[in-house]
Amino acid sequence: MPTLLADTNLFLWVDLEQPTPEETKFVLEDIFHFHPLSIEDCIVVSPSPKVEEYTPKEEDRFAPYLFMVIHAVDYSRKDGVFATSELNFFLGKNFLVTYHEVPLKSIHSTEERCLKGTVHIARAPDRVAHTLLDGIVENYRPALEELSLEIADLEQQALQSPGKETLNKILQVKKEVSNLRRIIGPQREVLARFARGEFKLIRAHLVPYYRDVYDRLFHIFELAQGYIDSLTGILQVYLNMSSNHTGEVVKLLTMITLITTPLTLVGTWYGMNFQHQMPEYEWKYGYLMALVVTVLSTAATYWYFKKKKWF
Amino acid sequence: MPTLLADTNLFLWVDLEQPTPEETKFVLEDIFHFHPLSIEDCIVVSPSPKVEEYTPKEEDRFAPYLFMVIHAVDYSRKDGVFATSELNFFLGKNFLVTYHEVPLKSIHSTEERCLKGTVHIARAPDRVAHTLLDGIVENYRPALEELSLEIADLEQQALQSPGKETLNKILQVKKEVSNLRRIIGPQREVLARFARGEFKLIRAHLVPYYRDVYDRLFHIFELAQGYIDSLTGILQVYLNMSSNHTGEVVKLLTMITLITTPLTLVGTWYGMNFQHQMPEYEWKYGYLMALVVTVLSTAATYWYFKKKKWF
Amino acid sequence: MPTLLADTNLFLWVDLEQPTPEETKFVLEDIFHFHPLSIEDCIVVSPSPKVEEYTPKEEDRFAPYLFMVIHAVDYSRKDGVFATSELNFFLGKNFLVTYHEVPLKSIHSTEERCLKGTVHIARAPDRVAHTLLDGIVENYRPALEELSLEIADLEQQALQSPGKETLNKILQVKKEVSNLRRIIGPQREVLARFARGEFKLIRAHLVPYYRDVYDRLFHIFELAQGYIDSLTGILQVYLNMSSNHTGEVVKLLTMITLITTPLTLVGTWYGMNFQHQMPEYEWKYGYLMALVVTVLSTAATYWYFKKKKWF
Amino acid sequence: MPTLLADTNLFLWVDLEQPTPEETKFVLEDIFHFHPLSIEDCIVVSPSPKVEEYTPKEEDRFAPYLFMVIHAVDYSRKDGVFATSELNFFLGKNFLVTYHEVPLKSIHSTEERCLKGTVHIARAPDRVAHTLLDGIVENYRPALEELSLEIADLEQQALQSPGKETLNKILQVKKEVSNLRRIIGPQREVLARFARGEFKLIRAHLVPYYRDVYDRLFHIFELAQGYIDSLTGILQVYLNMSSNHTGEVVKLLTMITLITTPLTLVGTWYGMNFQHQMPEYEWKYGYLMALVVTVLSTAATYWYFKKKKWF
Amino acid sequence: MPTLLADTNLFLWVDLEQPTPEETKFVLEDIFHFHPLSIEDCIVVSPSPKVEEYTPKEEDRFAPYLFMVIHAVDYSRKDGVFATSELNFFLGKNFLVTYHEVPLKSIHSTEERCLKGTVHIARAPDRVAHTLLDGIVENYRPALEELSLEIADLEQQALQSPGKETLNKILQVKKEVSNLRRIIGPQREVLARFARGEFKLIRAHLVPYYRDVYDRLFHIFELAQGYIDSLTGILQVYLNMSSNHTGEVVKLLTMITLITTPLTLVGTWYGMNFQHQMPEYEWKYGYLMALVVTVLSTAATYWYFKKKKWF
Repeated sequence: MPTLLADTNLFLWVDLEQPTPEETKFVLEDIFHFHPLSIEDCIVVSPSPKVEEYTPKEEDRFAPYLFMVIHAVDYSRKDGVFATSELNFFLGKNFLVTYHEVPLKSIHSTEERCLKGTVHIARAPDRVAHTLLDGIVENYRPALEELSLEIADLEQQALQSPGKETLNKILQVKKEVSNLRRIIGPQREVLARFARGEFKLIRAHLVPYYRDVYDRLFHIFELAQGYIDSLTGILQVYLNMSSNHTGEVVKLLTMITLITTPLTLVGTWYGMNFQHQMPEYEWKYGYLMALVVTVLSTAATYWYFKKKKWF
Repeated sequence: MPTLLADTNLFLWVDLEQPTPEETKFVLEDIFHFHPLSIEDCIVVSPSPKVEEYTPKEEDRFAPYLFMVIHAVDYSRKDGVFATSELNFFLGKNFLVTYHEVPLKSIHSTEERCLKGTVHIARAPDRVAHTLLDGIVENYRPALEELSLEIADLEQQALQSPGKETLNKILQVKKEVSNLRRIIGPQREVLARFARGEFKLIRAHLVPYYRDVYDRLFHIFELAQGYIDSLTGILQVYLNMSSNHTGEVVKLLTMITLITTPLTLVGTWYGMNFQHQMPEYEWKYGYLMALVVTVLSTAATYWYFKKKKWF
Repeated sequence: MPTLLADTNLFLWVDLEQPTPEETKFVLEDIFHFHPLSIEDCIVVSPSPKVEEYTPKEEDRFAPYLFMVIHAVDYSRKDGVFATSELNFFLGKNFLVTYHEVPLKSIHSTEERCLKGTVHIARAPDRVAHTLLDGIVENYRPALEELSLEIADLEQQALQSPGKETLNKILQVKKEVSNLRRIIGPQREVLARFARGEFKLIRAHLVPYYRDVYDRLFHIFELAQGYIDSLTGILQVYLNMSSNHTGEVVKLLTMITLITTPLTLVGTWYGMNFQHQMPEYEWKYGYLMALVVTVLSTAATYWYFKKKKWF
Repeated sequence: MPTLLADTNLFLWVDLEQPTPEETKFVLEDIFHFHPLSIEDCIVVSPSPKVEEYTPKEEDRFAPYLFMVIHAVDYSRKDGVFATSELNFFLGKNFLVTYHEVPLKSIHSTEERCLKGTVHIARAPDRVAHTLLDGIVENYRPALEELSLEIADLEQQALQSPGKETLNKILQVKKEVSNLRRIIGPQREVLARFARGEFKLIRAHLVPYYRDVYDRLFHIFELAQGYIDSLTGILQVYLNMSSNHTGEVVKLLTMITLITTPLTLVGTWYGMNFQHQMPEYEWKYGYLMALVVTVLSTAATYWYFKKKKWF
Repeated sequence: MPTLLADTNLFLWVDLEQPTPEETKFVLEDIFHFHPLSIEDCIVVSPSPKVEEYTPKEEDRFAPYLFMVIHAVDYSRKDGVFATSELNFFLGKNFLVTYHEVPLKSIHSTEERCLKGTVHIARAPDRVAHTLLDGIVENYRPALEELSLEIADLEQQALQSPGKETLNKILQVKKEVSNLRRIIGPQREVLARFARGEFKLIRAHLVPYYRDVYDRLFHIFELAQGYIDSLTGILQVYLNMSSNHTGEVVKLLTMITLITTPLTLVGTWYGMNFQHQMPEYEWKYGYLMALVVTVLSTAATYWYFKKKKWF
């Protein structure tokens, strides 16, 4: 194997998918002799992406390499959670070791393309790494489209039938998008270092390709920011709709109270038992008068509300 | 054609408006031999503006050039959406290739001015590029004026007749302005690089002109920020008006309840049927007393509200 | 004239106040041969301040100069609007050209001081420029004092008699102050370049004076920020007062409803017409009992509210 | 002792746990002759972490050393307070002095590991310091997990049974998390200086280990930020639930008022005493009509609310 | 006097406390020949702190010196206002001139310590300046402790008896703390320049002492930020308590209305005067039935609220 690596015209890609500890040890330690810290970082689940350059010192037996941790995102609408799966790279001049616990779409598609012999990709580790990163960034797109649909949906709901679940959903999606942004943020910084051409192991003429990936990730970050703004707006609509609804109820209560007031007042007044003292009782048209007063007052109240556009 | 380009005294502007793939290939690849990445970026719709300098390496056959993507904005009040159309530049020492899928105002007016032979503009690619960028920035102005009118309109609406649609409109315009700001933001950064004189292909004595364009774009960005502040204020007025309205309704309900209370109480009390035990029924002035008590209490209540300035 | 300028011991200040186009052309182009871009920037109303250094190249006929656009502020309480008037400087080694469309206080006072022969000021263009800038910054003070008074006034209003106009006024003053801050912001950056001694045309021993002007402007910016914070607080008081008011109204409604409840219940109950079945009607002390129950219950309710400190 | 230190092959770790002033003076002043300022900083409780490099000048008798103050966190759910305990390091080429007033977990576990002779750790002061820092950062994890549980709990409470205590709890946990963030913030900056390899006393091949600690702390900081966002969301749910509750109460009041309105109106109207003028009283089916009108109107009202989905 | 100053082994401290203009002129101009700008800055009340280095040019007669303006804070709980008093320093190699209009605690205590001959302090101007700055920063502590108590107090008030004054107090304290932060902000920047060792007049071995003062001021700034966060939380509690209170009132109103509804309905119904058509009037147990229906319905309503935990 070392002989293989010594031949700088060859390029070796080792993909460790759910490897056993023995395999891991064999490949990372016994063959490539990677720095123990990067091997530990590779095996342990690390929450934030990073990239580090390892240059061998006298006593070290490894060739110079880049170690990178990056997270692929998998969003399923069902549970509305962004699952991230870690992908570790060891990128040397003529080798690439990828390590991941979970099968990854972008790895598989890249492998297929390499096997099919699409010439450009398979030529060098920095090209393959670019294709992998490209695939990871591309995978955000369907997640974003689903989110975009869901947000449009929530906007409708907030305006039409706001309920407890709507609020919950709005806040949950907002949390998801914040979460997504928090995943992308540090990735952006990792990719920015590639885009600036900081690493000698990435050949200069490939840097624009990495910059391209960076630009796309940046745009996704901006989109996520836009989604958060939209959701804040939707929340405001929701809260307003909800308080508007109470306002409408109070309006109804007031309206009914006012419209029934004339009848109630007249009825209560003439329910008094000063039987022989109230001239209205004696008066021939007493009841008619009560009726007319009630009807007119009620009509006036009704007309008042009509004019004020209460209904 | 290469011969033409070899003559450094001549300057060639090729404008590709909705070109066929063959035309594109012919111009960008066969004549100018541009870098494949910039050709891909040119053809694909890219969401964020950018500028990149391509310097040929040994094997490359292109002359050094700047590749720029910028977005022109087209705002129609009808649907209140900022449509952006992409404009791609390839700017070399003695050539300028512009590529766009949609006809653009600033391209056409610049072409006309070139054909009319206004001397200054037509002399060099960096001058033409400046005129184009100037036109794109200038095109924001009508959009901003429409937005400014709409915001003034919304301010009126929020104060006078706030309704569901007003809220919706406020949030929509706010989204539009945020959107606009998100379009301008990265453009500003692209233009800043010109204004700082970062590119050798832009001659030093033209840099102040680019700085001028940058200053105008910066001012538009500031305006957009100001619009967002205004809209936040309008939203606050709207929400307050809406909650004020409920307050007014509750006030009305309370007022009517209180003003009718004396009559209701007196009426209910003397509706009791303790016919032969209540001395008031026997008393000659019983009804008169009831009437006087009712009228006086009601007047007192009325006076109380008047004093408290409830109406 | 050129002869005059050639004599480096003399210093020339040309003030163009509302000049005719001919005057402008004569002074700026024919005498001083300024760079066309700066002449255009001078004539056109430009929204943001700037400063630029023009160094002549071979073909240019102007002496090195600084071109600066700065905005003086004029705040009249009547309409509560900050009117800005543009002031353009062309500052050379031994000349100063000022250009403004509107008469400016700081220009006039500086002219007077120059004519009176106050020695220090009149000696060099960088001294005069400092005096002018100083005057412009000083002019912010009365505006800020008026704003400060208005804000104190609004604080009172929000606590005592909050109404629709109060909200409107608060939001309007807030907009004004934001506006002011947006005017000062870029000016601060322009002055910072002077304060850092970036320009050779400002002699080193005058830089502390410019730093002084910068410090004052910075403080005004901070003050404006403080005003915005105050206004946000006042807005919160206002909104709370307004919702408190509704709370008070609801409290009143509830209190009246509860206090009248005993009477209403007793009255309604004994208004029933089961004339010969209700023993209370037969009972000698029936009415007395009803009266006592009503009075006691009402007193208990009253006492309850008293204890709960409702009034 | 000085002889011991002079032997650069030996490495000395002195741990001062709750030392008496005499011990402190003996170790820090008489043996190591540390700079008086760092001794003062060590003894006094200092609120913010820091790291400083002391290089001896001619008259100084100490060897070059790094002085660092860092805070370990101890979170007990009972009182929900983050107690911090200060740990001071004096890190030289072949010595490490740690000073702390309170027994610390990470110190003890490191000591145990050193005594057990785990070779790597015990070899050099920079290794021990790394292990200590690692332990301190690791100690945040249980606190964060408790907080995470509490936040999930609050989310449930806010949705189901929001009360005064819920609000209080939300705001208290939010304060705690802000507090935690305020503790971590400056620590991050201190560790960043190690991660950048700023200090010569930390050997280059150990810098990646420090970077690792830094990365973990950075992730904890991000987590805390995420918690604050969650709590802001929970607060919004709480406030909405609370105002929703009032809305529900108003709805109930309105519903009952409306449903009883027909009966009240009919009852009041026919309670009038125009005994001999009201034809209904004479009419045979008068009471039946009243009954039917009441029942039908009430049913209609009921049906209306049913349709509007009020219950 | 100049002779005195020429002797570099001596160190002169001149403290000008409320000096007459003549004294000021005599000391600052005639003896030390300070730069006129710094003298003006010293006499005029300047709102923001600053530090400037004056290096003499050929024609200048002063020795190189640092001019600093810093503000001491005096907080009296009575009126809750931070009064700042300006302190001006002229710090040279062997002299220190302090100028202040108001007697200052830190000046007096330092003077005392100098006279007592505490050796270290009195030795050099940079030591005295450090002691003065230290005293000024130390003076913030009691103010912060008072604020901290007040905030704890407000937290109690907001939860227990929120009223208009509470809101007012919260906003006022918040304004005070913002104000304090605005005072500290620029001071921090001034001290940062000392902490970075920017000035040659401060000897290198004293820089750590200045860094110490800076660290303390930074911590105070952080504390102030924490206070503002607390006050924002208290404000939220207050606003919630206030709206909760209205909610409680509405609940009470609804409860009373519902509990009295059965009695009112029965009473109103049987108050109808269809004397000879209503079978209940004839029925022997009519009244009993009415009584039973009322009692049962009321009990059911009561039980309903009990179950819903309304009281």
